[in-house]
Parts: sequence; C-alpha cells; structure tokens
Amino acid sequence: MTNTKVTVLGLGAMGAALASALVRAGHPTTVWNRSPGKADALVGLGATAADSAADAVTAADVVVACLLDAASVHEVLDPVADLLTGRTLVNVTTTTPEQSREIAGWAAAHGVAYLDGGIMAVPHMIGQPGSSILYSGSQAAFEQYRPLLDLWGESAYFGEDAGTAPLYDLALLAGMYVMFAGFLHGAAMVADAGVSATEFAKRAAPWLSAMTGELAGFATVVDGGDYTVPGQQSLEFSDLGDMVDASAAQGISTEVVGMVQALIRRQVDAGHGKEGFARIYESIKQPV
Amino acid sequence: MTNTKVTVLGLGAMGAALASALVRAGHPTTVWNRSPGKADALVGLGATAADSAADAVTAADVVVACLLDAASVHEVLDPVADLLTGRTLVNVTTTTPEQSREIAGWAAAHGVAYLDGGIMAVPHMIGQPGSSILYSGSQAAFEQYRPLLDLWGESAYFGEDAGTAPLYDLALLAGMYVMFAGFLHGAAMVADAGVSATEFAKRAAPWLSAMTGELAGFATVVDGGDYTVPGQQSLEFSDLGDMVDASAAQGISTEVVGMVQALIRRQVDAGHGKEGFARIYESIKQPV
Repeated sequence: MTNTKVTVLGLGAMGAALASALVRAGHPTTVWNRSPGKADALVGLGATAADSAADAVTAADVVVACLLDAASVHEVLDPVADLLTGRTLVNVTTTTPEQSREIAGWAAAHGVAYLDGGIMAVPHMIGQPGSSILYSGSQAAFEQYRPLLDLWGESAYFGEDAGTAPLYDLALLAGMYVMFAGFLHGAAMVADAGVSATEFAKRAAPWLSAMTGELAGFATVVDGGDYTVPGQQSLEFSDLGDMVDASAAQGISTEVVGMVQALIRRQVDAGHGKEGFARIYESIKQPV
Repeated sequence: MTNTKVTVLGLGAMGAALASALVRAGHPTTVWNRSPGKADALVGLGATAADSAADAVTAADVVVACLLDAASVHEVLDPVADLLTGRTLVNVTTTTPEQSREIAGWAAAHGVAYLDGGIMAVPHMIGQPGSSILYSGSQAAFEQYRPLLDLWGESAYFGEDAGTAPLYDLALLAGMYVMFAGFLHGAAMVADAGVSATEFAKRAAPWLSAMTGELAGFATVVDGGDYTVPGQQSLEFSDLGDMVDASAAQGISTEVVGMVQALIRRQVDAGHGKEGFARIYESIKQPV
C-alpha cells in the first residue's frame, strides 16, 4: 500500500500536514499549490513538487484536494478533469453537503472515484491521537485506500451519499466555533477584573473539557423526546439573566450569551419553563 | 476542624450535594429548606433538620447559603440577620457581582464574615476530581475554613472584593452554556441525516474536549494584542458561510452559528479579514 502514488493539491497548513504524513510513511508524494513557495519544506522531506495541476494529477493514483472552498475545487480540477478519469479523488476541502453532492456528480460524469472527507483535527494533530476524519462517497475507494487514510487519523465512513461527511463535519465545527466564542466572551467578562485571557484559559479549558461530560445526558433526553425527565436543571433556573446583566455591566456585548437566552426564553414563553435545559434543542429545530 | 458546626440553607441538588460532603466528613451538619421533605435523605446520612432558618443559623459556626438567587438570600436571611452576627456566611448562590457586593455590605453591617463562592461543578462532581470552587470576600474566613471548603473541590481565592468570584463564575458558566448550545445546534444539523443526538455526542464530546486545547493559543494572542501573529487561521477563512448555509438547508435556526458569524464579519468589515480568529474578542469587547 505504501506504493500508492498520492498527490496533494493545496498546501495551506492542513494540506501541508496531510502531505507530510504521506511522505513520512513512504508514499511517493507529489505536491502542488496555486501560489509557489509552499512546497519547499515538503520537497525537503522527500516530496516532488509539480509545476502544474495537470502534472500533479497525472503523477498519482489518489489525488487529495485540500483547497479553500468548493469554487476553488472546480477552478483547479475542471481544466484537468479528463486527466482525473480512472483515478480516485479524495476531497477534504470544507464544503456544504450540497456542494459535495455536486462535486460527486461531476466526478462520476468524468469516471473519477470520489470520496469526501471532513477533517476533525487542526493541522498539528494530523497523524496524532485525537485526529479523526469523516468520509462519505465511494465505499470501494474508502476500503481500497483505508491504510493510507488511516495515516492522518481515525477514519470513519458514513455511506455513499457524499454529502453526509461534510454535514457531520460542519456540525462538529459548529460546536467548536460556538465554544470558542463562548470562551472569548468569558475572557472578555473577567478582563476588567485584572484576569488575563491566559489565566482564564487555565481554568476554562479543564472546565469546558469536564462539561463535555454532560453532553451525553442532554443527547439521551433529546433522543427520548421527553424534556420532563427528573433530575434536569430547569429552563426557568437557567434563565441566564445574571450572566447577561453581568456582561452588560462590564461594558461588553451581550450577543454571545443573549443567543442562548433567546433559545431558553422561547421555550419558557411557550410554557416549558419547568422542563430541562436540553429543550433549547426544540428552539433550534423550529426557527422563528 | 471537623468539629466546625455547619448549616446548609437550601437543599436543591447542589445544596444537598454540599451538605452530604460535610456530613460524610464528620461535620455536625444542620440542614434547612424552605419547602419540607428535602432534608430526609440527609437526615438518614446523619444531618440534623432544622424547623426554621433561625434554628438552622443558631446551630452553626458557618452558614452556607445555596439558594435560588440574590432575592432568595435576602428573603431567608434578612429576618435572621441578628442571629448571624459573629458567624461566617458562605454564599454559593449564583448572583451577579453587584448583588454579591451588596450582600457583602449587608453582612458587614451585621457583623457577619462574608465569603462568596462560585461552584464550578455539577452536583454529582462535588468532592470529586474536577470540582473547583472560586471564592472572594473575607480572606480570614477563607483561610480559617479552608479545610472545610476543600471537601467540596479545589478551593481558589480571588481577593477581598466579593464580586470577583461571581464574575469569574458567570464567565465560566457563559462558556459552558454557549458550548451546550453549540453542541445542540450540531445535533440538530445531523438529525435529518439519521444521526441520533447520542451518536453525535459520542463524537462531539471528545472533539470539543480536544478543541479546548486551542484556547490557550487564542488567549496568548488576545493578551498580546497582536492578531497578525503568523500561524493563525484567518477570519476570512473562518467566515462560517458554509455552516450557516448548511444549517438553513436543514431547516433549522441559524441563530447559534449566526452569532459567531456576526462577530467575525464585524472584524472583516473593519478591514481585519487577514488577521486571526481570536480577533472576534474585539467584537465582544466593543458592542455595536
């Protein structure tokens, strides 16, 4: 399997990390980036730099696209579509599910095996414990190249619909970005009390990590559909009024915590104040 | 120190957990709750149930208030203020910093040593690893009763201003509630693809826990004040357009991820699109 020839298109921080893992595992690896200079470090490791996307594609059995967005995928690959025929395209560019399905259709029309990948890691985690990558699309491609894919992290396959992995990816990224905003809001709250963001992070990181232990309990309630299950903190108790007031008193924006309060209040206003906090799921499922 | 007589006022899930830890450590413990029946299990463990708040207060050296809100603290303690004189009040009721300072002033006027506590744990974590409690107010009280306080978790002291611990508490709780909302948004995104919330939580909990490892890096950038430091993911790259679009396509509310996008776009619109994601801190610090 380490004889599989691989090309990585796009050498941002993530593309470079993916290519580096392939080179280190002994795969003949070709790299290409639209703007030059990004390949130098990888060439130092043993990769081959291609002068054009066409040269890069023809050098490989498996072409990995790690580009800016869905439009970039078409800009780079449309001109070389015929060269891709008979090869496998693993697209780890962040896209919407609809965009992924569209690219899958384009690949099928050109005789290209297509696998969409959602990377659940930051670049320095690639190949390290904790990195996982979600795939959907061609099951045959997933199974054939799984040893290669496993070099980057734990590989999980979610079915032939190419749009499933990007959806799952975006859902996990949503949790991450929202958590980051919550952390930065907390840091802004304590700043005027002389607490540095670094000091706050030392408490916030283990606290938030510990609180991820509560997610399974919320999930059980959501899946059960009965928000009156005893033992939950009620929506009335979690009004967040103190938090919003304290934020305003610090002179900072209340929009981060106000977002959660709005979800809570819609349920309280609908008469569900005695029910559990997980019920804000229903506010999210039914947009106003 | 285990001879210190303690009273716990308020026997919700948290108050009961605090009282239980005291009883198990051998402290003579008196418990009281406004509505009856909540004390039975604790009496079974060895606690004494008081018939009134007055009886409860006079039984103890240290009075712990774990009530609904600041108004409840006054409703319960104003009638027994004179009985509190000379004792120590540890108030772990969730309040705003302003409310805590007001209660501290009230306590000082009645000759009561006052310590405000913010509990960074859910009830089942009390006395277990990962539980920490933030205190501010009387340093003398904190030092005198620290062995008792340590029964509940790691104790941290933040100075004589009683409002500091509640502010820190609310800041960490803000991070938590916002993370919970982000998780539930993600669960709602994948629901129509046939992924249960429980299945999603199995990936989301370790993912979000791993991503708390990024917080220290954001904090370093925020404290340094230079969002152009190399190696950061740019705001332009993190526009979240795909995430908002995919949420809308699933027919769910976009307000959770839209909140983060609004913070990002204010910085991009102000010309900072090439700078790092941590710059959304500036959107939070300067409300529109």
